[in-house]
Amino acid sequence: MSDNFFGEINPPQRLLMGPGPVNVHPRVLRAMSADMLGQFDPEMTEYMNQTMALYRQVFMTKNRWTFLIDGTARAGIEAALTSLIEPGARVLIVRAGRFGMLLSEIAERLGADIRTLDLEWGQVATLEQIEAALAEHKPAVFATIHGDTSTTTAQPLDGVGALCHQYGALSYVDATATLGGMPVKTDEWGIDIVTGGLQKCMGGPPGSAPITISDRAAEFIFSRRKVESGIKRDDISDGTRPFIRSNYFDLAMIMDYWSEKRLNHHTEATSMLYAARECARVMLEEGLQARFARHAAAGAAMTAGLRALGLTVYGQDAYRMSNVTGVYVPQDVDGERVRHRMREEYQIEIGTAFGPLAGKIWRIGAMGYNAELNKVRITLAALKEVLASERNGF
Amino acid sequence: MSDNFFGEINPPQRLLMGPGPVNVHPRVLRAMSADMLGQFDPEMTEYMNQTMALYRQVFMTKNRWTFLIDGTARAGIEAALTSLIEPGARVLIVRAGRFGMLLSEIAERLGADIRTLDLEWGQVATLEQIEAALAEHKPAVFATIHGDTSTTTAQPLDGVGALCHQYGALSYVDATATLGGMPVKTDEWGIDIVTGGLQKCMGGPPGSAPITISDRAAEFIFSRRKVESGIKRDDISDGTRPFIRSNYFDLAMIMDYWSEKRLNHHTEATSMLYAARECARVMLEEGLQARFARHAAAGAAMTAGLRALGLTVYGQDAYRMSNVTGVYVPQDVDGERVRHRMREEYQIEIGTAFGPLAGKIWRIGAMGYNAELNKVRITLAALKEVLASERNGF
Repeated sequence: MSDNFFGEINPPQRLLMGPGPVNVHPRVLRAMSADMLGQFDPEMTEYMNQTMALYRQVFMTKNRWTFLIDGTARAGIEAALTSLIEPGARVLIVRAGRFGMLLSEIAERLGADIRTLDLEWGQVATLEQIEAALAEHKPAVFATIHGDTSTTTAQPLDGVGALCHQYGALSYVDATATLGGMPVKTDEWGIDIVTGGLQKCMGGPPGSAPITISDRAAEFIFSRRKVESGIKRDDISDGTRPFIRSNYFDLAMIMDYWSEKRLNHHTEATSMLYAARECARVMLEEGLQARFARHAAAGAAMTAGLRALGLTVYGQDAYRMSNVTGVYVPQDVDGERVRHRMREEYQIEIGTAFGPLAGKIWRIGAMGYNAELNKVRITLAALKEVLASERNGF
Repeated sequence: MSDNFFGEINPPQRLLMGPGPVNVHPRVLRAMSADMLGQFDPEMTEYMNQTMALYRQVFMTKNRWTFLIDGTARAGIEAALTSLIEPGARVLIVRAGRFGMLLSEIAERLGADIRTLDLEWGQVATLEQIEAALAEHKPAVFATIHGDTSTTTAQPLDGVGALCHQYGALSYVDATATLGGMPVKTDEWGIDIVTGGLQKCMGGPPGSAPITISDRAAEFIFSRRKVESGIKRDDISDGTRPFIRSNYFDLAMIMDYWSEKRLNHHTEATSMLYAARECARVMLEEGLQARFARHAAAGAAMTAGLRALGLTVYGQDAYRMSNVTGVYVPQDVDGERVRHRMREEYQIEIGTAFGPLAGKIWRIGAMGYNAELNKVRITLAALKEVLASERNGF
């Protein structure tokens, strides 16, 4: 057995201008250096309650059930879908990018009857298209991505919740890539469950997934509750519908954990809760509108700057996410060489792409702590130098 | 909408002598304050590789597939069972406490054909009992807890892996509560999958679950692989067996993510990886044997000290976990009042209990950074004062 235990953690100071994760706000890093509490200590449960109150503001909702899933953003997605989708239930999914595909991938694992509204990558669904699909398929659950970083496109959601209610569907939206950067209007949109992550516009590390759940969805989920036999209690009973096929992602038990019942489930990931709480505090101190405006300004500057470099920006201006911009790799350079030189010579990271866009576009983010004009300018200046150098061979 | 965003995180300085989480080693807290890297940056993938090498030593194994699950310890358990158990597969589970119950709970959610070796809480299964159950049930998967904190009891595992192989079962052990404190001899025991957590004897925060997987189990799991359609690649093919019913816990895709293939799956929880890496570094610098001896000394001192206070220690000395001690609440005091006073007057937390032991025993831990004689002495001295005060009414 080797006694090689390597050196202290010591990452380079790199400007992360990809599609996430991005640099973490220093206040969030500091918050994570606080020590643990017992999971049912009154100070800990008070921090949990505060985190719920803070994320209600972040999600622009009055939903009582607003809390954290202990895992990355993808854990939030799976918790929502696993709890909403009964085996064999019909689900309608909008697919116009990699993360729309992920929703149907997860639904397939759950044994759902999957119907899709398939669009070319980077397109958005109109309200008419969504209504036609709801009318045709009569799904129990409707699911879509808000901002799909794979295409840098944001799906408009005004009116979508009301349509879903009209056709009897519970609605789910993944807002991982937009939460904290673009308005996520849970109540105004009327969406039943919205999930997010910290590592993009919230300016935190990956590893915690904020979630908000309407009373209507919570009622449905509680009807699937199944309490572990090792911790049965008189005040919490099992539901009447088919139980949720995951313990870790059983939102009914997790809601009981976050409620005054404090049903023992997992041990809350304390450092990540501290991080999530501080991300929200930083955001709310800045103010939601100021923060959205800052992201919009950074995104507009990035788009304009890329065009000023003679590059072609991917996608439609009307549906562009404000926090990540796709840009075509010029034909006369090697996209991966450019990314490599940006990282090695300037310590700036820009992103590659997936699926049909792999090798065709770069994705350049300006999210959270990095949604600042100076960082946009630095990135553009470095890109200009690297492109010139590659083209001139010096 | 309120603009109440609460104050800075500021937990009291509390000595956590319950069954976990416990106080985090200061080096681990500091490691978490390092900033992010892009998830496929060479420095990040190198940190991932180092983490794999470190946890091979922690798990006392040569298993290539040794890495982290992004969630709490329970996420590691569910990832293992979800990936091992096909719908309808027969599973044999040892149940002698709350966490044994949790294994069957998760298996039930997965649609397993569950057989159990049920023992009174706090008992351990003998090799003969295990062999008889394997011979009777011929399970595809055998699962047990190593140290069940609900009963403070450690299940002996010498020879168990070989028996499972002999009867054709893949074996799983949950070592959440013992990893880093008692020897977890993955290879010597011949166990196929072992999972752990950070928040007990590893001296870290909850939120990351180390896992190790034998080649034999990995081969089985890869036969259930299902790559997301949004990121299909020519060099990774789907398996031939029924796919895993979770995306987040699909160990085949997670192994591809941790391998040189770097298949995109979740975004690794970077701060928690920094924490897990530092927990292992602290452990390996101390040395495995020295660390186990430190935990054993602290546990022995706790047990002896509780007896010296005239209290009755729960369970059998021969099978006691070295890092958490159960002790009967004396008949003449109110157990919850004592815990409350310990916390309020001394800032020391001791644990309550679950199920048939609820209200009957306290659980007092000495784990990780807190497995120190001075902390054991402080806890005992405070408990002595509180008991005397409660009895004398002053």
